[in-house]
Amino acid sequence: MLRFEGALALAQAASGIIPQESAKIINDYCNIDLINIEQVKKDIKLGGNTAIPLVKQLTQIVKKQDEEAAKYVHFGATSQDVVDTGIALQIQKYMVWLNEKLHELQQILITLTQKHRQTLMIGRTLLQQARPITFGLKTAKWLTPINQIQFPVPYLTLGGAVGAGNEFINRNVQLELGSTLALNSPSGGQDVLFCCQLGILSGHLGKIAKDISLLMQTEVCEVFEGAVDGKGGSSTMPHKRNPVTCTAILANAIRTPHLVATMLSTMPQEHERSAGLWHAEWETMTELAGLTAGSLEKTIELLSGLEVDKNRMLQNLEITKGLIYAENVSLALAQKIGKTDAHHIIEKACKTAIFEQKHLKTVLQEMKIDLENLDELFKPENSIGNSLEIIDEILNH
Amino acid sequence: MLRFEGALALAQAASGIIPQESAKIINDYCNIDLINIEQVKKDIKLGGNTAIPLVKQLTQIVKKQDEEAAKYVHFGATSQDVVDTGIALQIQKYMVWLNEKLHELQQILITLTQKHRQTLMIGRTLLQQARPITFGLKTAKWLTPINQIQFPVPYLTLGGAVGAGNEFINRNVQLELGSTLALNSPSGGQDVLFCCQLGILSGHLGKIAKDISLLMQTEVCEVFEGAVDGKGGSSTMPHKRNPVTCTAILANAIRTPHLVATMLSTMPQEHERSAGLWHAEWETMTELAGLTAGSLEKTIELLSGLEVDKNRMLQNLEITKGLIYAENVSLALAQKIGKTDAHHIIEKACKTAIFEQKHLKTVLQEMKIDLENLDELFKPENSIGNSLEIIDEILNH
Amino acid sequence: MLRFEGALALAQAASGIIPQESAKIINDYCNIDLINIEQVKKDIKLGGNTAIPLVKQLTQIVKKQDEEAAKYVHFGATSQDVVDTGIALQIQKYMVWLNEKLHELQQILITLTQKHRQTLMIGRTLLQQARPITFGLKTAKWLTPINQIQFPVPYLTLGGAVGAGNEFINRNVQLELGSTLALNSPSGGQDVLFCCQLGILSGHLGKIAKDISLLMQTEVCEVFEGAVDGKGGSSTMPHKRNPVTCTAILANAIRTPHLVATMLSTMPQEHERSAGLWHAEWETMTELAGLTAGSLEKTIELLSGLEVDKNRMLQNLEITKGLIYAENVSLALAQKIGKTDAHHIIEKACKTAIFEQKHLKTVLQEMKIDLENLDELFKPENSIGNSLEIIDEILNH
Amino acid sequence: MLRFEGALALAQAASGIIPQESAKIINDYCNIDLINIEQVKKDIKLGGNTAIPLVKQLTQIVKKQDEEAAKYVHFGATSQDVVDTGIALQIQKYMVWLNEKLHELQQILITLTQKHRQTLMIGRTLLQQARPITFGLKTAKWLTPINQIQFPVPYLTLGGAVGAGNEFINRNVQLELGSTLALNSPSGGQDVLFCCQLGILSGHLGKIAKDISLLMQTEVCEVFEGAVDGKGGSSTMPHKRNPVTCTAILANAIRTPHLVATMLSTMPQEHERSAGLWHAEWETMTELAGLTAGSLEKTIELLSGLEVDKNRMLQNLEITKGLIYAENVSLALAQKIGKTDAHHIIEKACKTAIFEQKHLKTVLQEMKIDLENLDELFKPENSIGNSLEIIDEILNH
Repeated sequence: MLRFEGALALAQAASGIIPQESAKIINDYCNIDLINIEQVKKDIKLGGNTAIPLVKQLTQIVKKQDEEAAKYVHFGATSQDVVDTGIALQIQKYMVWLNEKLHELQQILITLTQKHRQTLMIGRTLLQQARPITFGLKTAKWLTPINQIQFPVPYLTLGGAVGAGNEFINRNVQLELGSTLALNSPSGGQDVLFCCQLGILSGHLGKIAKDISLLMQTEVCEVFEGAVDGKGGSSTMPHKRNPVTCTAILANAIRTPHLVATMLSTMPQEHERSAGLWHAEWETMTELAGLTAGSLEKTIELLSGLEVDKNRMLQNLEITKGLIYAENVSLALAQKIGKTDAHHIIEKACKTAIFEQKHLKTVLQEMKIDLENLDELFKPENSIGNSLEIIDEILNH
Repeated sequence: MLRFEGALALAQAASGIIPQESAKIINDYCNIDLINIEQVKKDIKLGGNTAIPLVKQLTQIVKKQDEEAAKYVHFGATSQDVVDTGIALQIQKYMVWLNEKLHELQQILITLTQKHRQTLMIGRTLLQQARPITFGLKTAKWLTPINQIQFPVPYLTLGGAVGAGNEFINRNVQLELGSTLALNSPSGGQDVLFCCQLGILSGHLGKIAKDISLLMQTEVCEVFEGAVDGKGGSSTMPHKRNPVTCTAILANAIRTPHLVATMLSTMPQEHERSAGLWHAEWETMTELAGLTAGSLEKTIELLSGLEVDKNRMLQNLEITKGLIYAENVSLALAQKIGKTDAHHIIEKACKTAIFEQKHLKTVLQEMKIDLENLDELFKPENSIGNSLEIIDEILNH
Repeated sequence: MLRFEGALALAQAASGIIPQESAKIINDYCNIDLINIEQVKKDIKLGGNTAIPLVKQLTQIVKKQDEEAAKYVHFGATSQDVVDTGIALQIQKYMVWLNEKLHELQQILITLTQKHRQTLMIGRTLLQQARPITFGLKTAKWLTPINQIQFPVPYLTLGGAVGAGNEFINRNVQLELGSTLALNSPSGGQDVLFCCQLGILSGHLGKIAKDISLLMQTEVCEVFEGAVDGKGGSSTMPHKRNPVTCTAILANAIRTPHLVATMLSTMPQEHERSAGLWHAEWETMTELAGLTAGSLEKTIELLSGLEVDKNRMLQNLEITKGLIYAENVSLALAQKIGKTDAHHIIEKACKTAIFEQKHLKTVLQEMKIDLENLDELFKPENSIGNSLEIIDEILNH
Repeated sequence: MLRFEGALALAQAASGIIPQESAKIINDYCNIDLINIEQVKKDIKLGGNTAIPLVKQLTQIVKKQDEEAAKYVHFGATSQDVVDTGIALQIQKYMVWLNEKLHELQQILITLTQKHRQTLMIGRTLLQQARPITFGLKTAKWLTPINQIQFPVPYLTLGGAVGAGNEFINRNVQLELGSTLALNSPSGGQDVLFCCQLGILSGHLGKIAKDISLLMQTEVCEVFEGAVDGKGGSSTMPHKRNPVTCTAILANAIRTPHLVATMLSTMPQEHERSAGLWHAEWETMTELAGLTAGSLEKTIELLSGLEVDKNRMLQNLEITKGLIYAENVSLALAQKIGKTDAHHIIEKACKTAIFEQKHLKTVLQEMKIDLENLDELFKPENSIGNSLEIIDEILNH
């Protein structure tokens, strides 16, 4: 907010609206160390926002140096100008960090995908084992939405009392100030879109954490959060390896949709500035940005240290005793005896396998089904569809 | 969904995966009139989605014509492929309508803005009269976010059982099918972004309705929904002119944020397809799209027939008896006697005006304040800041 | 709504406000078969609610019979009276159904709990195996919140134009009408509390579905939705047993929190009746009631046919090779050699067991740990804490 | 949380589970001043909750005093026991405060209602003037839902690792501990119900603030937030009297529905303890409790200092130039010439009044309508229906 007040004075001086000297003094004293923060907090109550007490203090500080300059503090501006631009400048800084971290996450996911391009595992739908995929396909699909996220440039708010500008807040000042602060022209609703995108990011990270927490289940044990001494363990339950990092990301992903909804709920604001809806935005955005940043940091930590148990993945592919390959056999047999007959034979074989708790391949061998390449049909690497092509396409994108 | 099944067969035939003739038959029988919808509804329960009973019926229909062709119905595809692509095709159609209506709304807002570029009214912040603007500035600011909305192209879902594709669902088939249906490549989370944008649009329309409903208040009476016989009136309360259309738009704007949040809540889906989160998307999207479309239609109706009472706007500018111009006088006086003295004098004059319920100009005249252009300082057209420049910039954008 | 109009006329006649004969005629013609519903739907747009066109039609119908009686239709009442009381009467009916179904669910859960009071299984926290419980403890805990749900009696809305009543809508009429319709006195916010309780119920049912869907995982396989021909299966993936019923309940549980929030968002209504917030309640309540009813029906279906695999539960208790009993051994050993030494020895034994993939009991035997009752310490039935007492207490509640 | 640990040790000693002396030492050292809070914060990351590092520190502190006692710290308990009971104890304290403040609010509303029982004002529906009420009726209706709010007693969580209890955490210990801490027996979902009720309270307070903010509009000016020097005013816009306190309450009322929804979203928790959903509850409850408390304090402040302008209320009753009394005249005339004729005549008179901008009474006089008590029909005090009876009933409740 002080950065806004300083830059505003300089922009107004550049347009000949206020004296250069006054602007310089104002800008020099826009220094957070000079502000009594506790007093600001106390005074917020009277005016209902942070701008009023802050500008009051700043004016007093400047006045002590130069009476004339004090007249030009916050000149022609309104509370919303400084509050919303202050938030925009924080978002600007936040987005630099966010983009760096997103890049880091992309690199980690690319590396994981390359490494596990051919790591065979079962694909699961509706929490049931379905057909084989590779772990690289899973991580590539985690990567896709991260690649697609784009955030809008935050924008300058500068409109004076009713957003109409005035003689001290004209188009020149707006352009100059926007340029100095590297903010877009005034606009509408972009902050809500930004919040939506944070919510979407948090949701994607939640999906990664959901998958990993499920894969860490004692009965699955395919991947694990990296072990850190004292993390996720239990002295009385030595077998536990709690998905502590996933838990934090998942907790955030439960909360962020509702924070996005809060922002959307604030949109039908009354007239030129709302009584309440505008005020509900502040903490909501802060919280949403914080939770999403936390999830991003945690996901990087989670994936950096991820342990993948390829052997267990192979073992789990055998849990259904070959039933996940039933369709392979059915299609192969159809080439010989037609689809309908093939389907009936394999359906019967599956029932036998389930009832007698035998491997489907064994049942088929016992049924003397005439298929020379039976072993090949029961190999996961022959059942991953176009997993590798899809991975390569995502990586080359 | 039938369009997907037909086009899939043709795409697979084009790639030499299934016979041309079979594909032609399948495509010919993908006809909604042949489907027993009630039976589909009844059977949804067993499989948990619409795809399973629909494909079953379609297969039977095709089988009656050609046993061979029946083998290739929904070949290699999974329920999610046809359900989600079916939704994408509906969104595609919806978006054509949406863009047409948005264009219509833009034109109406442009016309309103041009017409009321100089229509003077009071700007209001925190529900209090603040400083004059023009009604055209208000409508121009309603227009800005409408100008900025951009929707993503809906995308094709085609991945087979676990999203890995298979020999019948390969890259060629995907490209061919995407091209036929004019859908983007498979992607992630774009449907949630689309929903967010619907929520944002509904919020903007809610803001327009909020403003108009407030301006229609019996105590304000500046604008009105167009009069239609029997609409919004009351036989026992003849003075009432209820904001009936605004009410519908506002009701939608209360509901849509929560529907967007529902979509965001569905994001952390388990593994290759979720048990429940995917299923929660369907009705939510339909409802969100319906409410937003309703709000858009209603807003067009609302603004097309909008009645603006310029005289009442001018009268309302006088409610504070000149106090809204206090700052003008203060600044003019400051040129002569310095800012501090000017401020004190005007502050005193305002207190007198309030206490004695006199017009501020009268008080200043009685105080013999020496300002030759006093009348000019109390004219709203001299107090609208850069309203006209802002309007022109938005219109020329 | 027609029931309200009929009963209102009778109540007004009982209070001597309108003629008995007119009331009788009005009540006789309050018959849904006489109403042109399509016309009502078409006319809603003009007045913004269902009451206006319905009352209009009803008045015309009555007028054809008796001009005098027509004067007393909806006499002194306002749209909100009939709309909200209409909803209350629907809730009343809905709650009879709801309470019956809740009773049915309670009985099923009691039976399940009694049957599985001693069915041993692993308890899981953070998706990790933790310590043994019984399946009956799980079902008893599903039962507890169902036992606690209490719904408020729906209330009569009857206040005329601004909720102040009038000479035709006085206290006597209110009491008489409330008594006839078995509705509580006018009140505030009880409908939101009712919606909250529906949301809570839907959440509890979601918890049951969540647990069952996880227990149905291919890697866990402890319980199953009842098999119905064609339900949840897949012809190409014969091993799948999709949690189709759970899926529907979980999808609802994702959506209902947001519908409750919508109701809460409608609370800050303007003045004596809101423009928009009231209108947002209608479809939201209907949807929330429908989804919760659906979840309740589905949960009854789910639990009625539930298949429990006790053997698999026992097998899964062995997955950690005895590590889930480490604490038992540690405590037993502590009796002999002190807690600290015991802890160190067992910690070492666990590490060995994990590293060498041996059963903890084997490791302890190899380490020649001197504990005569070692076998007992590794039995799940000795490790279920107070499960049985907790179950009995819940059942006896 | 320390209070829980101390009381648990004492309860276990009372049941003979741990030595009395150890319990006493543990309880004595359950002292927040001995805890290194920064270290706790730092260590939360490893275990994912506050309990683990806190218990670790407490154990070390006790160990320094007595090795034996240290063995019994947190004996048999799990993280959720101490976290959730810690929250319950905070809620307990919070609810004492809440009930005090609610009582204070009730008293203020009773006083306001008594004072303004007969203060005439216009009732408004859909933001339009409708029919007269008294201000006391409005405040009485603000009071009703406050009178109805009831909060559930918070409950003890004590179940050990998987909620099944164990030999150290049995029914006796539970009863003893519940009694010491004055908490209810373990239960389910009551915390969500508590949160729902906070959301409902916040919504009701939002309704009060909404009404007052609308009544403070420059064009309405019927009531005002109490004037405090420097509050809500603007030096450059001396006429503004911003609804600063209302704004804070309204901002909270926008946010709280979404926080309630977050709590409802956490309900479908996995198995015996969730990975993420449980964790999402903590900050959400804190925030919801804080915002609701803030709204309650602000509403007390708002209503304590409320300024009511009775004269302006009377003036605003005249804005429609008598049209709000049209129904009165119509009904009176109907006694003489029948309802239909009366309706037509008054409808015509109203149109004339609107078109010629005359007072309806004047028009009727010019039309020589024969009604001796015409003046009485245009008095607001004769048009408030049963306002006074409704008020008295609420006050006597």
